[in-house]
Amino acid sequence: MIARFLEIRQKTEAICSPLCIEDYSVQPSEFASPPKWHLAHTTWFWEEFVLTKYDSDYVVYHPDFSYLFNSYYNTVGKRVLRPTRGLMTRPPVEEVYAYRTHVSKAMELFLKNDLSKEVLDIIEIGLNHEQQHQELLVYDIKYLLGMQPTFPIYGNDFMTTAEKQETGFVSIKEGIYEIGHQGESFCFDNELGRHKVYITDFEISKTLVTNGDYLEFINQGGYQNFNYWHDEGWGWVNENKIEAPLYWHKIENDWYQYTLNGFEKVNPDFPVMHLSYYEAFAYAEWKAMRLPTEFEWEVASTQLQWGKVWEWTNSAYLAYPNFNKAAGALGEYNGKFMVNQMVLRGASIATPENHSRKTYRNFFQANMRWHFSGLRLVK
Amino acid sequence: MIARFLEIRQKTEAICSPLCIEDYSVQPSEFASPPKWHLAHTTWFWEEFVLTKYDSDYVVYHPDFSYLFNSYYNTVGKRVLRPTRGLMTRPPVEEVYAYRTHVSKAMELFLKNDLSKEVLDIIEIGLNHEQQHQELLVYDIKYLLGMQPTFPIYGNDFMTTAEKQETGFVSIKEGIYEIGHQGESFCFDNELGRHKVYITDFEISKTLVTNGDYLEFINQGGYQNFNYWHDEGWGWVNENKIEAPLYWHKIENDWYQYTLNGFEKVNPDFPVMHLSYYEAFAYAEWKAMRLPTEFEWEVASTQLQWGKVWEWTNSAYLAYPNFNKAAGALGEYNGKFMVNQMVLRGASIATPENHSRKTYRNFFQANMRWHFSGLRLVK
Amino acid sequence: MIARFLEIRQKTEAICSPLCIEDYSVQPSEFASPPKWHLAHTTWFWEEFVLTKYDSDYVVYHPDFSYLFNSYYNTVGKRVLRPTRGLMTRPPVEEVYAYRTHVSKAMELFLKNDLSKEVLDIIEIGLNHEQQHQELLVYDIKYLLGMQPTFPIYGNDFMTTAEKQETGFVSIKEGIYEIGHQGESFCFDNELGRHKVYITDFEISKTLVTNGDYLEFINQGGYQNFNYWHDEGWGWVNENKIEAPLYWHKIENDWYQYTLNGFEKVNPDFPVMHLSYYEAFAYAEWKAMRLPTEFEWEVASTQLQWGKVWEWTNSAYLAYPNFNKAAGALGEYNGKFMVNQMVLRGASIATPENHSRKTYRNFFQANMRWHFSGLRLVK
Amino acid sequence: MIARFLEIRQKTEAICSPLCIEDYSVQPSEFASPPKWHLAHTTWFWEEFVLTKYDSDYVVYHPDFSYLFNSYYNTVGKRVLRPTRGLMTRPPVEEVYAYRTHVSKAMELFLKNDLSKEVLDIIEIGLNHEQQHQELLVYDIKYLLGMQPTFPIYGNDFMTTAEKQETGFVSIKEGIYEIGHQGESFCFDNELGRHKVYITDFEISKTLVTNGDYLEFINQGGYQNFNYWHDEGWGWVNENKIEAPLYWHKIENDWYQYTLNGFEKVNPDFPVMHLSYYEAFAYAEWKAMRLPTEFEWEVASTQLQWGKVWEWTNSAYLAYPNFNKAAGALGEYNGKFMVNQMVLRGASIATPENHSRKTYRNFFQANMRWHFSGLRLVK
Repeated sequence: MIARFLEIRQKTEAICSPLCIEDYSVQPSEFASPPKWHLAHTTWFWEEFVLTKYDSDYVVYHPDFSYLFNSYYNTVGKRVLRPTRGLMTRPPVEEVYAYRTHVSKAMELFLKNDLSKEVLDIIEIGLNHEQQHQELLVYDIKYLLGMQPTFPIYGNDFMTTAEKQETGFVSIKEGIYEIGHQGESFCFDNELGRHKVYITDFEISKTLVTNGDYLEFINQGGYQNFNYWHDEGWGWVNENKIEAPLYWHKIENDWYQYTLNGFEKVNPDFPVMHLSYYEAFAYAEWKAMRLPTEFEWEVASTQLQWGKVWEWTNSAYLAYPNFNKAAGALGEYNGKFMVNQMVLRGASIATPENHSRKTYRNFFQANMRWHFSGLRLVK
Repeated sequence: MIARFLEIRQKTEAICSPLCIEDYSVQPSEFASPPKWHLAHTTWFWEEFVLTKYDSDYVVYHPDFSYLFNSYYNTVGKRVLRPTRGLMTRPPVEEVYAYRTHVSKAMELFLKNDLSKEVLDIIEIGLNHEQQHQELLVYDIKYLLGMQPTFPIYGNDFMTTAEKQETGFVSIKEGIYEIGHQGESFCFDNELGRHKVYITDFEISKTLVTNGDYLEFINQGGYQNFNYWHDEGWGWVNENKIEAPLYWHKIENDWYQYTLNGFEKVNPDFPVMHLSYYEAFAYAEWKAMRLPTEFEWEVASTQLQWGKVWEWTNSAYLAYPNFNKAAGALGEYNGKFMVNQMVLRGASIATPENHSRKTYRNFFQANMRWHFSGLRLVK
Repeated sequence: MIARFLEIRQKTEAICSPLCIEDYSVQPSEFASPPKWHLAHTTWFWEEFVLTKYDSDYVVYHPDFSYLFNSYYNTVGKRVLRPTRGLMTRPPVEEVYAYRTHVSKAMELFLKNDLSKEVLDIIEIGLNHEQQHQELLVYDIKYLLGMQPTFPIYGNDFMTTAEKQETGFVSIKEGIYEIGHQGESFCFDNELGRHKVYITDFEISKTLVTNGDYLEFINQGGYQNFNYWHDEGWGWVNENKIEAPLYWHKIENDWYQYTLNGFEKVNPDFPVMHLSYYEAFAYAEWKAMRLPTEFEWEVASTQLQWGKVWEWTNSAYLAYPNFNKAAGALGEYNGKFMVNQMVLRGASIATPENHSRKTYRNFFQANMRWHFSGLRLVK
Repeated sequence: MIARFLEIRQKTEAICSPLCIEDYSVQPSEFASPPKWHLAHTTWFWEEFVLTKYDSDYVVYHPDFSYLFNSYYNTVGKRVLRPTRGLMTRPPVEEVYAYRTHVSKAMELFLKNDLSKEVLDIIEIGLNHEQQHQELLVYDIKYLLGMQPTFPIYGNDFMTTAEKQETGFVSIKEGIYEIGHQGESFCFDNELGRHKVYITDFEISKTLVTNGDYLEFINQGGYQNFNYWHDEGWGWVNENKIEAPLYWHKIENDWYQYTLNGFEKVNPDFPVMHLSYYEAFAYAEWKAMRLPTEFEWEVASTQLQWGKVWEWTNSAYLAYPNFNKAAGALGEYNGKFMVNQMVLRGASIATPENHSRKTYRNFFQANMRWHFSGLRLVK
């Protein structure tokens, strides 16, 4: 447990290692937090939910930090408003690292104790919480660097690979299937309430939609034809003058994209990435197919190769029939976001190892696309 | 058919009869259209989709009207933007009534012909379309009058009644159920694709939540406690300083509401009305129960009394498994709204007779509440 | 006095006579009030500042109207917010005319009394106030009709005429001049505080800039060259995609404009109208000349032909050295607008007779152009 | 000249020396630029207007910087939009300092040449330009630090001092006075066009309004009484819930303020600072006095002690009668801001030595107050 804790803590810092100090504090959009904030907030979680509650020897690092680095837990108290996270130049990065060290050391000692089930459960959530922020860190760093006029290089990590050539569809038979997490291993509360669903015959593609596929949609006027779009999506396209996935730039007649490894020509063999739900849906309409529901995806998942990009499904993010939210602050983790978001299934190349499973329910608003999102078709 | 056509046309005008000319043109919000616009748009539908297509004798009333009174059909061409509907003082009301008469007469003649199945289907949609606008007219008129500083009286129609005293829950057994429209009678495309769903045991209340029930939620601080709310709903409450259903006003220590029959004290026995989805959800959380899914509602509906208020469900508005949208402009009727909306089931006191059925899928965005919306609990 | 009172009251109604009922209530922009509101507000002025104060026999027409038709007098109490004036469909137009009759009759009787200087002064302000609203009515009616997709015709009043052919400049000699109103006749408080200013030699054009002149500016890329514009004006041009004066439309290669007499080809001999201060300034820059100050204008005015369009000056609207604002509500008439507005001098074809004089200080914000505004050059 | 150049360059860096790296890149508001941007932009000025134009040996430091660090010179080409200056984390601070060194060295060499009058004039502007940014740097740093929840200390520089006790007014006699810069020394183009103005008798206070004076205005309800405010100012107060000068915080019953030296109790003897024009005007109204015009101020200035805070005048920022803007990019320096801004006269404790004179025309929009602004009364 201690080794796992330290490894995860170290991984968070490793993700930030290619940054210069200036990169840590800036917030390029309301939805993207500054890297410094992630470093501090994941630390705050351990201090707030474990150390100050269960470790009587623990000395709080700084009394202001409980307020400064709360994300959205109303239960815990007031907090810095999300859009102003990027204004906090103080504490400086160096002090945030000292805070991390202080808390990690305290946790290391604390973990040597004989801990109750209650505490162990919270620690498990804390580890998964930090892993979720590792993935968000990658999104936010890419967004920050991709907004720089100079397109700086982050490095060769988190780069996707070509989709396999073998194509075709997996067929699933009509019937009753069980959905949701099973067994003793960790999962989030939104995966529980295992229950039966009735599923009709469907076929699901073995491969993800690629950049090459998506270029056809662009070239055939997909962004100019309202027939493929939701009314709301069509408004979004026109208001924001969207013409391609996020990070794509047309230079003369070629498409380029910003990647973490710099500015590159779009590779047609790679899975398409950085699509909004609106775009994924419109692409499927254009193909005269559709997106899978999250239930179809889960049922078929054992026969699919997945894990390069999060896959938009046609399911809204809603509670499973017997959903029980946790008591206290951790009850704010998932349930309160169950409106106006769509579910994504799978995992991405930015997802930490050991942090993916077929029942995992990721979710974003329909217009978001700075996360590593793509799609797979169903017919 | 002719009698039914004329009756529905007449009903639209009857709804407007208590208005003064000034009321017809004003648009008090982006979501509420001016009554004159409804009168014209329902007429435009007949002209655009029936007469100019299938009646070679038909003479268009005015060449500009195709543009002026299109609602959202991109297929048909350009249109007046929704927020500016209320700026059109011309054509005046009198001319819009003349337009109605012109089109109704042409339709009356046209309906005497032997019509193909294709045409009859469109006419059926037209009749249902006009009935939908009748209900919207009631919402929009109430909103316009309810925004007047003087709270004018519309009349005694469309007033709700007390909920029956007998309470209790209906129990539904776990199993496979069929969902969606069946048979030859009319339904919208979004009700088709009848399919099986697996439903777990549940109990659903025989009665709607009443004003009296809801007052308890208010009095016990329901609007001040974030625990009951979606994150997005909590933002909505605070930004808009929401403290009660729409049209409710607290005067000294009593709650009053604007009704179409004037300003009245809130009657605790009536079903609560004019709630957003956020509020309906929060109320259920506070009660430690939940909203039904639209599937649960449909299954239980034969054992419930319904029809006073539309009932928010916990289902997002999405396509049924085999949803096929119609070709051409009528394909824009339903499918393109299937994102970020929640389903309501049932009907309201403003729903025209013969325009309700247990498979009907109504839908609105989660923050809307000028329609006649309430809720029923499930445990 | 009674005759003058009745004539002015009648003139207000005459301006509205070409309207249909629907035109009276709609507010096409925050800056343009509905005609019904002008009719009621000018009546409210007499009721609020004369009858309820000085006529003990007066019976208030309706207790709500004091609130409903206050424009911006904080002293008088709460009021309907400006952007929502257009939502008030009630009281209907007919009742507003009844209100006018009620108040006019009461005034007619009241004016037969022997009135004090104090009362007579307020009556004089009331007459001028109503005349100011007559001019605003013309602007607001034009704006409402000009926003209709159908460009309806109002009539042949308030149409401008060709600028005289004889051109040239008037020379004014350097020296001390007196500025501000003199004598016993009526003026607004902002014209008082007659005082000396020192003026340097200048030459001012005898004629207004014409549509023909302005077309040259357009054709030579005036709207595309930042050098002629204030930084703020350049932002305004680009955000609003301004390419010509208000009401101008380019159809194929010709310029047309909406006038109160309908849609017409732009006449190059007429004075250019409906310019913002930004545009007037940019035009002068392009011509390598400048706008006059309001002091230069006043000094030269006796040698100029003026009265077709209000002329933008290069003077900010500020208090004269000894400005004294009136006590009470009427003190809110002018002084509180003395920031971020520019002065216009002269009068327009929409200005009521007997309501112009060379010391009159009109003022608008730099981006406004729905009033009848043009310019004259100085070198 | 070389010594002066180096001293000014060094001063800019000295102002930044108390900052941590994180402080350099963040932009807390559209009107406040990041310190890094000031460091780079003042360097860009030398490169763009001197070295690349007149020094044939000069090697541009980095080809992107011409674009990245242009402020508002349309003549020079495209530029990073003002609100996104704070997103540029790259180039990092260290590289910006290297850029400064590169350019300063090149300038040092270049200044050893025998330079033409034309070049010397531009260098003089460059020195004054950099001094202006030194003052803006102090404002922007204070704003950034003052927005931190932790109120960090910058240091003891730029702190104001108590206003002298001796009070009273200076009387100025009516007559013709000359306004504007005279002689060979440097001034900005907006000070030229020396010209006569006629001034009426007035008396101007020898002392600035103090915090103590202003507290009385607050305590007597100055922020709650519309009578003292412009209509626009009253809207500003209510929309932004303004209750005191910027940086003031009420804790229990005492007023505190953020200063560059930390959080301190408001000292009643210090001149009041960080007022908008609206507030300065309202204070004067409440005192039944007024602000001076910029002409009155200039005439009286030799008899006043000034230099602690910029003093709002009642003059709009407009061109002097014979204003000539410079050709080319430097013509964009002043003239294009001459609309909707008010003039401030004097200087502040953040104004660099040798950068103040009685004819200096500073200007800001009426709602701005992060600069060091106060007021002096006239009667």
